[in-house]
Amino acid sequence: LRVGMPEVVFAQGKTAAQVAAIARKLAQRGPLLVTRLDEEKAGPARRAVKGSRYDPVSRTLSKGRMSLPVRGPVAVCCAGTSDIPVCEEAAVTLEVMGVEPVRIFDVGVAGLHRLLARRGDLDRCVAVIVAAGMEGALASVVGGLVGKPVIGLPTSVGYGASLGGLAPLLTMLNSCAPNVTVVNIDNGFGAGFVAGLIARQG
Amino acid sequence: LRVGMPEVVFAQGKTAAQVAAIARKLAQRGPLLVTRLDEEKAGPARRAVKGSRYDPVSRTLSKGRMSLPVRGPVAVCCAGTSDIPVCEEAAVTLEVMGVEPVRIFDVGVAGLHRLLARRGDLDRCVAVIVAAGMEGALASVVGGLVGKPVIGLPTSVGYGASLGGLAPLLTMLNSCAPNVTVVNIDNGFGAGFVAGLIARQG
Amino acid sequence: LRVGMPEVVFAQGKTAAQVAAIARKLAQRGPLLVTRLDEEKAGPARRAVKGSRYDPVSRTLSKGRMSLPVRGPVAVCCAGTSDIPVCEEAAVTLEVMGVEPVRIFDVGVAGLHRLLARRGDLDRCVAVIVAAGMEGALASVVGGLVGKPVIGLPTSVGYGASLGGLAPLLTMLNSCAPNVTVVNIDNGFGAGFVAGLIARQG
Amino acid sequence: LRVGMPEVVFAQGKTAAQVAAIARKLAQRGPLLVTRLDEEKAGPARRAVKGSRYDPVSRTLSKGRMSLPVRGPVAVCCAGTSDIPVCEEAAVTLEVMGVEPVRIFDVGVAGLHRLLARRGDLDRCVAVIVAAGMEGALASVVGGLVGKPVIGLPTSVGYGASLGGLAPLLTMLNSCAPNVTVVNIDNGFGAGFVAGLIARQG
Amino acid sequence: LRVGMPEVVFAQGKTAAQVAAIARKLAQRGPLLVTRLDEEKAGPARRAVKGSRYDPVSRTLSKGRMSLPVRGPVAVCCAGTSDIPVCEEAAVTLEVMGVEPVRIFDVGVAGLHRLLARRGDLDRCVAVIVAAGMEGALASVVGGLVGKPVIGLPTSVGYGASLGGLAPLLTMLNSCAPNVTVVNIDNGFGAGFVAGLIARQG
Amino acid sequence: LRVGMPEVVFAQGKTAAQVAAIARKLAQRGPLLVTRLDEEKAGPARRAVKGSRYDPVSRTLSKGRMSLPVRGPVAVCCAGTSDIPVCEEAAVTLEVMGVEPVRIFDVGVAGLHRLLARRGDLDRCVAVIVAAGMEGALASVVGGLVGKPVIGLPTSVGYGASLGGLAPLLTMLNSCAPNVTVVNIDNGFGAGFVAGLIARQG
Amino acid sequence: LRVGMPEVVFAQGKTAAQVAAIARKLAQRGPLLVTRLDEEKAGPARRAVKGSRYDPVSRTLSKGRMSLPVRGPVAVCCAGTSDIPVCEEAAVTLEVMGVEPVRIFDVGVAGLHRLLARRGDLDRCVAVIVAAGMEGALASVVGGLVGKPVIGLPTSVGYGASLGGLAPLLTMLNSCAPNVTVVNIDNGFGAGFVAGLIARQG
Amino acid sequence: LRVGMPEVVFAQGKTAAQVAAIARKLAQRGPLLVTRLDEEKAGPARRAVKGSRYDPVSRTLSKGRMSLPVRGPVAVCCAGTSDIPVCEEAAVTLEVMGVEPVRIFDVGVAGLHRLLARRGDLDRCVAVIVAAGMEGALASVVGGLVGKPVIGLPTSVGYGASLGGLAPLLTMLNSCAPNVTVVNIDNGFGAGFVAGLIARQG
Ligand SMILES: Nc1ncnc2c1ncn2[C@@H]1O[C@H](COP(=O)(O)O)[C@@H](O)[C@H]1O
Ligand SMILES: Nc1ncnc2c1ncn2[C@@H]1O[C@H](COP(=O)(O)O)[C@@H](O)[C@H]1O
Ligand SMILES: Nc1ncnc2c1ncn2[C@@H]1O[C@H](COP(=O)(O)O)[C@@H](O)[C@H]1O
Ligand SMILES: Nc1ncnc2c1ncn2[C@@H]1O[C@H](COP(=O)(O)O)[C@@H](O)[C@H]1O
Ligand SMILES: [Mg+2]
Ligand SMILES: [Mg+2]
Ligand SMILES: [Mg+2]
Ligand SMILES: [Mg+2]
Ligand SMILES: [Mg+2]
Ligand SMILES: [Mg+2]
Ligand SMILES: [Mg+2]
Ligand SMILES: [Mg+2]
Repeated sequence: LRVGMPEVVFAQGKTAAQVAAIARKLAQRGPLLVTRLDEEKAGPARRAVKGSRYDPVSRTLSKGRMSLPVRGPVAVCCAGTSDIPVCEEAAVTLEVMGVEPVRIFDVGVAGLHRLLARRGDLDRCVAVIVAAGMEGALASVVGGLVGKPVIGLPTSVGYGASLGGLAPLLTMLNSCAPNVTVVNIDNGFGAGFVAGLIARQG
Repeated sequence: LRVGMPEVVFAQGKTAAQVAAIARKLAQRGPLLVTRLDEEKAGPARRAVKGSRYDPVSRTLSKGRMSLPVRGPVAVCCAGTSDIPVCEEAAVTLEVMGVEPVRIFDVGVAGLHRLLARRGDLDRCVAVIVAAGMEGALASVVGGLVGKPVIGLPTSVGYGASLGGLAPLLTMLNSCAPNVTVVNIDNGFGAGFVAGLIARQG
Repeated sequence: LRVGMPEVVFAQGKTAAQVAAIARKLAQRGPLLVTRLDEEKAGPARRAVKGSRYDPVSRTLSKGRMSLPVRGPVAVCCAGTSDIPVCEEAAVTLEVMGVEPVRIFDVGVAGLHRLLARRGDLDRCVAVIVAAGMEGALASVVGGLVGKPVIGLPTSVGYGASLGGLAPLLTMLNSCAPNVTVVNIDNGFGAGFVAGLIARQG
Repeated sequence: LRVGMPEVVFAQGKTAAQVAAIARKLAQRGPLLVTRLDEEKAGPARRAVKGSRYDPVSRTLSKGRMSLPVRGPVAVCCAGTSDIPVCEEAAVTLEVMGVEPVRIFDVGVAGLHRLLARRGDLDRCVAVIVAAGMEGALASVVGGLVGKPVIGLPTSVGYGASLGGLAPLLTMLNSCAPNVTVVNIDNGFGAGFVAGLIARQG
Repeated sequence: LRVGMPEVVFAQGKTAAQVAAIARKLAQRGPLLVTRLDEEKAGPARRAVKGSRYDPVSRTLSKGRMSLPVRGPVAVCCAGTSDIPVCEEAAVTLEVMGVEPVRIFDVGVAGLHRLLARRGDLDRCVAVIVAAGMEGALASVVGGLVGKPVIGLPTSVGYGASLGGLAPLLTMLNSCAPNVTVVNIDNGFGAGFVAGLIARQG
Repeated sequence: LRVGMPEVVFAQGKTAAQVAAIARKLAQRGPLLVTRLDEEKAGPARRAVKGSRYDPVSRTLSKGRMSLPVRGPVAVCCAGTSDIPVCEEAAVTLEVMGVEPVRIFDVGVAGLHRLLARRGDLDRCVAVIVAAGMEGALASVVGGLVGKPVIGLPTSVGYGASLGGLAPLLTMLNSCAPNVTVVNIDNGFGAGFVAGLIARQG
Repeated sequence: LRVGMPEVVFAQGKTAAQVAAIARKLAQRGPLLVTRLDEEKAGPARRAVKGSRYDPVSRTLSKGRMSLPVRGPVAVCCAGTSDIPVCEEAAVTLEVMGVEPVRIFDVGVAGLHRLLARRGDLDRCVAVIVAAGMEGALASVVGGLVGKPVIGLPTSVGYGASLGGLAPLLTMLNSCAPNVTVVNIDNGFGAGFVAGLIARQG
Repeated sequence: LRVGMPEVVFAQGKTAAQVAAIARKLAQRGPLLVTRLDEEKAGPARRAVKGSRYDPVSRTLSKGRMSLPVRGPVAVCCAGTSDIPVCEEAAVTLEVMGVEPVRIFDVGVAGLHRLLARRGDLDRCVAVIVAAGMEGALASVVGGLVGKPVIGLPTSVGYGASLGGLAPLLTMLNSCAPNVTVVNIDNGFGAGFVAGLIARQG
């Protein structure tokens, strides 16, 4: 993108060969991140970029990390199994930007004690990403606990009236906690990227 | 309606004279409840039904209460000022059905401690009504705290992406707490009525 | 979940191995219910939990049942073939909670006599679940017949303007019968769970 | 319109003077119907058309009636007070077309006995119009009772999730009774007009 | 269904064996129609019902036809190739009801002369079915040409802003031609069934 | 805007004084058009701009006209009374751009002969604007008649399922006539402006 | 279609044999264009029409080109890889109509310099097509740069809140640049066709 | 709210007396901000809080400002007149949080040069708020110019297909610039609050 940004490729809708070609070119300019890269399609790009690592959970290929000064880590929260892939996309994005992700992956609103037990981790972070599908209430609850920017990351996990993620998206947009802003459904990269910018010095 | 039910009039869309006429007739059969009755329109019905009381907050006119055996009180929760009218519609409905409402009116998700401080009140109830506009997350949080039926009562309080109450409605329908069921937006009467049925013995 | 609740696993979006591992762990704590478990994926979990039974119609795996005191059975109604799987999910949930489900599976609104013929069964229940797709009118009709809580369970059965279940969901939310509350589309588990709580003593 | 049709004016969005001018002109050609004419605006048209009658409930002005041979009357059904104006618009339309409307105005789905008590009236009609707001279930129930064309007439009566009449519209479109077709929300004129055509001989 | 109606099976969502079993049973009572029956699934039912014919275009299996007195034929119109299957579902339904369908299958609004050339055919029918996807304008144009009931049959043919058939559905509901009523998207059976009822004597 | 464009002010949401101030300033640069200017608010602007004329039907204030070479006139079509204001907004825009508008204001799809009678006028134009509310079918019909660009101008005229103009908007976007493009609901200015650009030489 | 138009076949939803048959017949009348023709299905049509060329990117089969006088070329713009297929559908349509397409395929709003570097190309065109998915902002930016008709071509590229192309469709309809009109999602043919008409002399 | 936050009152839906009472109480604890306070309703609160100032454009009442260390100013951008009130709500919120707002109020996407002329101002800020109605494209364009967090603030300015602000909301959520997050429609307070948190040291 611009000075101080990693090079990013959105692999969805591209062939394995197209991804490999773009990735090889961009990797010469600095830290690289390829997102939405399915496992079956990852081989050519991994071979094209020496030293890259592919992560099947987040479906990302990455290489290198930026080394700009950072104010602190960023928390990445969700209620459990289903939201972990999108959380990992955010976490890998943070890592490539040189920011430490603090994973808090078992804190649903229906069991507040688990969330309250992680307040120490939340408090040492400079921003918090909250991923949630279904009703998305977790963003408001976390927003009420921390005096930091919270990035709501609605996911398409759910069925019926979750409307493919529109329900948690609306929930987060209407959050009564005023420190919540929102990104697109399943956009782990965008959440990680903005949190990474917030975490930067200067 | 049927044996064991109060007589109910939905005043919205009826003239003051129509409401008064219906109310007078139904009041002869047993406990009476008139809902959605604006203050300017309440006079004739109040005069038509001796001993009735009009409440401007809930916009209800009521007289008498049923005396069937009941298993316990019902909690009525919300985050504050704006949702109180719809909560009061539910509370008055409970009272007419002979069930005690326990008002818990200052417990938003952005301040969990206030909610946790009322656990004793929640625990002595046999069901809980949770009214919420904007993002509606409160129903899930309460649902996670109590092992009882929770009736989600979405309200039209909010603006923009709250879509006139559709946002909290969707939130509640997608609640990850499995003890939550939902009624129509602003339907305090319906929430109170079902909670009243649940509270009944036998 | 909490004291007095069965342990529940939502298998959708999890691998067979993940489901088996979670199920084995939870089965040690008490009665177990696994929902949304496709037949191809059920083997490992069934083997992991001794004494469990898998039901391909409701796509549930279950073991044990709770033995808390109960006030009476719960009716589970629908119009026929297509809605039976979601009804069975509700029925199995009730069984695990120690509540008897009364299946009333051939009562559509276009043939009222079949419904009226089952009034005796409806009358001996303490709550009624009504599953319906397409237009969802059955919930209102049943709601008008019984003086008990009715849980509307919209299903995704239908096409075109049924909008994947949104049409019956809206129908049930707008029910003119005031004893109807609603759960998410195809959420047989949620309907059974709430009905089970209502059926409990105390 | 065409030979054998009444002249019709849709007054909504026209000034009283515009309506009067059009009405005077059309009244010379045959039976006349003006719809959506508010009481404050009706004076000039009534004076412009000698022998016309204005009905404030249906908000129609009409004069004369067609005298083509007809196969039988048409039933117009609803649950009560709120839907009566749109039913009357349909009934007046039928009258101008020379068809007898049979008003069945107190038959909601939450009280089936009242509907069943009117089966004789339904059976002598050649078509049935069913107006309903909120959840619109009445059209399916009536559709299941009669072997004739049923015209579903959704109304905007309701609030919240009734979405200004979209909920009953969807209900009726998804009707499991195959004899139901549907017109636009609050379109009493259209429902009456089509029923009038069906009732005609030849 | 009822006296004077064919027996109808909706095969979608049922197994080939289930369809065959139901079809065999119902075929004993009178004329039979099975709809939404895919070719791969049709064999068992065809063998189970002696003398039945399967039509792959309309995806129907049928046997026999009713012989009640009829007032005249019914036109079935569309613009071409894509809408023909749903038109044929309507046409076969009419045939089973003993009503002659008049197929008018090449008349799009973008070529009015072809439609005007078929006025003779339209004029000898007692009702008209108009199937259309995309923008659905054909129903209004036909509605303006004939003084008979027109049944709008929106189809899911289209892409993008056709929203799976919602666009032509809305078009038809808003038709400025007052003789148009509407059935569900792709509901050829429903359109044929209602047109069949309209075509009947008495 | 740019060289060769009129100066345009969108008055909606501005005070009369704000409009007058902006209009006075812009009128010094060339031909001026103020849109969405309610009659009560027009006085100050009319006085501020010498030689301007206010038109209450289109709610526009305008002064001067451009004199670039033009290829021919532009037709502006609609079905009648209700759509005339938005058509006039388009017509005045054309006039300010130095293009002749040809008004064709009484041509609904339910009366094709009136439209066909105006083919001569359509044929001498270089582009056609078609305004329509309700079902919006007119754009497709006109699109099928002319081999020129057609600009679909959906209007908010209608009720119920017209959804404030979304129904005709969708109709026009899905037009089977490939020469139709679409502007926002009620955007007479935009339709006139684009048609004006198309009509220009060079 | 009409005099001066190419013959066009929409292959989606037709079999390879149906397409080949129609294409052979139409190719005798003049320039031919087949759209939405998948590679696996193209063989028979290509063989049926001597001298035709199949293009797998735009999924078009075409033969010949019209030779009417033209005022200038048409630009076809997008931000990159994903929108190219729909752009090529527009470009091939222009070619068949005898209009030169100017491809400007690497100009996203997040990198304005690339767009500004192509102003010379934009300035020599008589109209501009702008394809964009996701947020669709490119149409407004291009609209602000050129004093020509801009045809917004929303694409279904995106995920989550892009709603299958509805988001860029709405963006373009609301464009603050008044020279933008819009076609259906992914309708590259329609965009090219209208631009081709605008580019024509006379 | 919490330590380090101003006290905030949301006046919409409260009476003037209620607002005054709450404001007086909260003003004792620290800096105060009252939002959505209409001019007619502001008097009692202004008198109740000594030293408060009411601003009719942003409809805010405020007193005092926080003095925590801050990293730099925050830009607040929009295209002009209509979006200024919501921008001012954001700006006043920033001021109360002790952060300097940099107003950039005349930069629409249809005139890029005005935006590019303000790059110096954008570059000295640590975050940027972009308010936009209609199509909301400005957020993406600004996002592409700055390497900082951008907060998209959709507004309800517009008509027709802007859907009360849903169109710009979707635009911003789908932004191809990855540094954009989004708040609710017209939520100037929320945008200012989050930007204020980002601007803080530590
Ligand atoms: N606030 C409310 N919302 C929805 N339904 C209501 C409400 N109040 C009363 N009702 C229902 O309306 C019925 C009375 O309607 P009506 O006969 O029109 O007065 C009662 O039987 C209730 O079931
Ligand atoms: N209530 C109504 N809803 C919809 N269409 C109507 C209604 N009343 C009249 N119409 C139609 O409007 C036409 C007259 O419209 P107009 O020429 O504007 O008065 C008639 O031919 C009817 O088809
Ligand atoms: N009726 C209208 N609908 C949409 N946009 C308009 C309309 N009238 C004028 N405009 C646009 O609004 C701009 C002027 O807006 P403003 O600067 O707020 O007065 C003009 O450049 C036009 O592009
Ligand atoms: N314009 C606004 N939009 C959304 N939320 C707001 C706004 N102004 C204030 N708030 C929130 O509303 C809360 C105060 O609400 P209340 O207690 O009802 O006055 C504050 O804590 C803010 O988080
Ligand atoms: Mg917020
Ligand atoms: Mg639930
Ligand atoms: Mg209810
Ligand atoms: Mg039907
Ligand atoms: Mg109609
Ligand atoms: Mg088109
Ligand atoms: Mg425009
Ligand atoms: Mg983003």
